[in-house]
Amino acid sequence: MKYIGIDLGGTNLKGVAIDRKGDILYKKNIQSRTEEGPEVVIRNIIELIQNITRTVKGDNKTIAIGIAAAGVVDIENGICTWLPNLPGWKDIALVQIIEEKIGTPAYLINDVRAMTLAEKTVGAGQGIKNLVCIAIGTGIGGGIILHDQLYFGDEGFAGEIGHQVINFNGPKCTCGNYGCLEAYASGAHIILEAIRMVKQGATTIIRDLADNDLNKITPKIVALAARKGDEIAKEIWENESFYLGVGLANLVHILNPEMIIVGGGIAEGSDILIDGIRTAVCERLHLGACTDHLQIVQCKLGDIAGAVGAALWSKYSINKVINRRKR
Amino acid sequence: MKYIGIDLGGTNLKGVAIDRKGDILYKKNIQSRTEEGPEVVIRNIIELIQNITRTVKGDNKTIAIGIAAAGVVDIENGICTWLPNLPGWKDIALVQIIEEKIGTPAYLINDVRAMTLAEKTVGAGQGIKNLVCIAIGTGIGGGIILHDQLYFGDEGFAGEIGHQVINFNGPKCTCGNYGCLEAYASGAHIILEAIRMVKQGATTIIRDLADNDLNKITPKIVALAARKGDEIAKEIWENESFYLGVGLANLVHILNPEMIIVGGGIAEGSDILIDGIRTAVCERLHLGACTDHLQIVQCKLGDIAGAVGAALWSKYSINKVINRRKR
Repeated sequence: MKYIGIDLGGTNLKGVAIDRKGDILYKKNIQSRTEEGPEVVIRNIIELIQNITRTVKGDNKTIAIGIAAAGVVDIENGICTWLPNLPGWKDIALVQIIEEKIGTPAYLINDVRAMTLAEKTVGAGQGIKNLVCIAIGTGIGGGIILHDQLYFGDEGFAGEIGHQVINFNGPKCTCGNYGCLEAYASGAHIILEAIRMVKQGATTIIRDLADNDLNKITPKIVALAARKGDEIAKEIWENESFYLGVGLANLVHILNPEMIIVGGGIAEGSDILIDGIRTAVCERLHLGACTDHLQIVQCKLGDIAGAVGAALWSKYSINKVINRRKR
Repeated sequence: MKYIGIDLGGTNLKGVAIDRKGDILYKKNIQSRTEEGPEVVIRNIIELIQNITRTVKGDNKTIAIGIAAAGVVDIENGICTWLPNLPGWKDIALVQIIEEKIGTPAYLINDVRAMTLAEKTVGAGQGIKNLVCIAIGTGIGGGIILHDQLYFGDEGFAGEIGHQVINFNGPKCTCGNYGCLEAYASGAHIILEAIRMVKQGATTIIRDLADNDLNKITPKIVALAARKGDEIAKEIWENESFYLGVGLANLVHILNPEMIIVGGGIAEGSDILIDGIRTAVCERLHLGACTDHLQIVQCKLGDIAGAVGAALWSKYSINKVINRRKR
C-alpha cells in the first residue's frame, strides 16, 4: 500500500509516493503553471496523481492522497481558503474535486505544517517531543509539534510565526501589519536589501553575480557572494540571522521547544545561517540555561518535505477515520 | 480530604485549602516578610500551612500541598531556582524542607502557571481546550493550556510571554534583553510613564491623586485618573493596550488559542484595559476571521488564583504519582 503526497506551490507541483513506513517509493516534479488559473492547476494535480498511481504499481494500492498548499487551508472541509501566491485560489474545494476525479480519500494541509510533520516523522525531528519548524522562502511560515503531535490551534492557523511582530515601528508587511518577522527576514526582503545596496553603489560582487541585472538577484546569489567573502552580502546574512534570532528567541520564551528546525528555500544548505541564528537566539534568551538543551538544526528533507508531509498527513488522517469507524 | 495551596509572593503569602472539586474551604493571607531572608519566609510558609491544617479539620485530611512561586522553579526537583523579587531565593529546595517539616507530599509550580491552571479548572477558562493566560503585575508572566493541559515545554519555562521582543530597538528590560513586552507594558513601566509625564509638567491629576509624592504613584492611581477623564492617564492606558495588543496578537499567530485570559494586579477590575487589548489585538491579526472565535476575557479568581492553582497542581501531581503506582 502507498500514500501519495502533492506539494502545491507557486512554481512547481511536487509529487511523492511513500510506503507505510514513510520511505519514498517515487517522486516527480512538474510545473504548476499557476498563471493559467486554478482549473489548469487542478488538472495538472490530477494528472500528476494519476501518473504516480500508474508508475508505482504492484500491490501498491493508493490508500489516501495528501495535498500541501502554500496558504490558508480549511483542513476540516478540504478547502483552499486563500493561497496568496496562486492567482485565483480563493475558497476552492480541492479535496472534493480530487476525490471525485480519483476516487481515493484526500486530505488537505498547509505546506509548512506538512513540512513540519515530515521532519518530525522521517527527518531532523525524529524522537523530539516538542519542536518548531520555520520555513524561510519568499515568506516565512512555521509549524509546531507539541507532545509529538502537530498543533493546529483553535481554527487551524497556529504556527504563523512569520507574522509575529518583532518591531511594532517596523516596515509594512505583505499582511498589512507592521514589523512582522516576515517583513525583515523573508527571501523577498533579502532580495530588496541586496538591490538597495547595489543601487546605493556599494562595493559588492552581487551585481556581477547577477549578470548586472537587478531582477536576477536571488537569495542564492547573495549567499554565493557571502561565501566568496563579499562584505555587503555577509552583512545582509548577518542581519538575516539577527532578525530570525529575535523571532526564534520569542518562540523559545513562549514554547520552550527542544528543537528548532530551519528550512525553506533560503535556509537550505546554509550552515552560515544556522550558526548565525544559533548565536542570535542564545544572545537573547532570558534563561541562558536553556541553550544547553535547545537544538537549532537544518531541515533534512529539503524541497521534498512538503510532499512527503502531505502523504504522511493523508496516512495520519485516514487512520483516524478508520479508528473512529472501529469504535 | 483537602489540598493546600500557598502563593509565595514578594509582599504576601496567600494560603487556601480546597476540596477535591476545587471549591475553596478556607483562605488566609499573611505578610511574607521577604526582606528578612528565605529562612524567615520558609518559617512563615510552614506556620501558614500548619494554621490552615489546624483550622480546616473534620475528615479533611491534607492530601498534598502546592506552592506557587514568582520566578523560575524546577518543578521536577521542587527547587526554587531563582525568585527575582525575593532576596536570597536562589536554588532553595523548598519542597524537601516542607515535606520534612509537615510530612505531606508537596509540589512546586511557577505562580502564573498556577494561576493559569486555576482559571482553566475553576475560573474563566472552564471548558476551553487551548488558552493563554497573561498576568500583568510588576512584570509580565504567562501560562499556556494546550489540549486541556498546562504546557511546560522542554525545560519547564514555556509561557514566558513577557520576554517576547516586540521591538528589538526598544528599551532595556530587567532580563537584560531589549524591547521585551515586559519593558513596555508591566506595572513598573506604567509607573515610570506616569512619573515621566508628571515631571514633564503635563496637565494631569495623577500628581494630586498621589498626594504630590511621585513615590506614591501606582497603576491603580493611574487607572483612577483615567476613569476620572484625565487625558494623560488615558493615554498611558491606551499605550498599555497597544503594547499588550502587539504581544498578544503574536501569541494568537503562534498558538491560535480560543481564549486569552488577562489577569494580574494591573488588569484586575479594568474593563477599559480588556476592551483596549481586544481592539489592539484585532487590528493586528493577519487572519481577521479568527477574531470571531477569539475570546479575550478577564480572570475570574482575582488575587487568590495563584494559591488555588497551587492547590490544584498538588492534586494533579499526587494523582499522577498514585496512578503511576497503580500500574
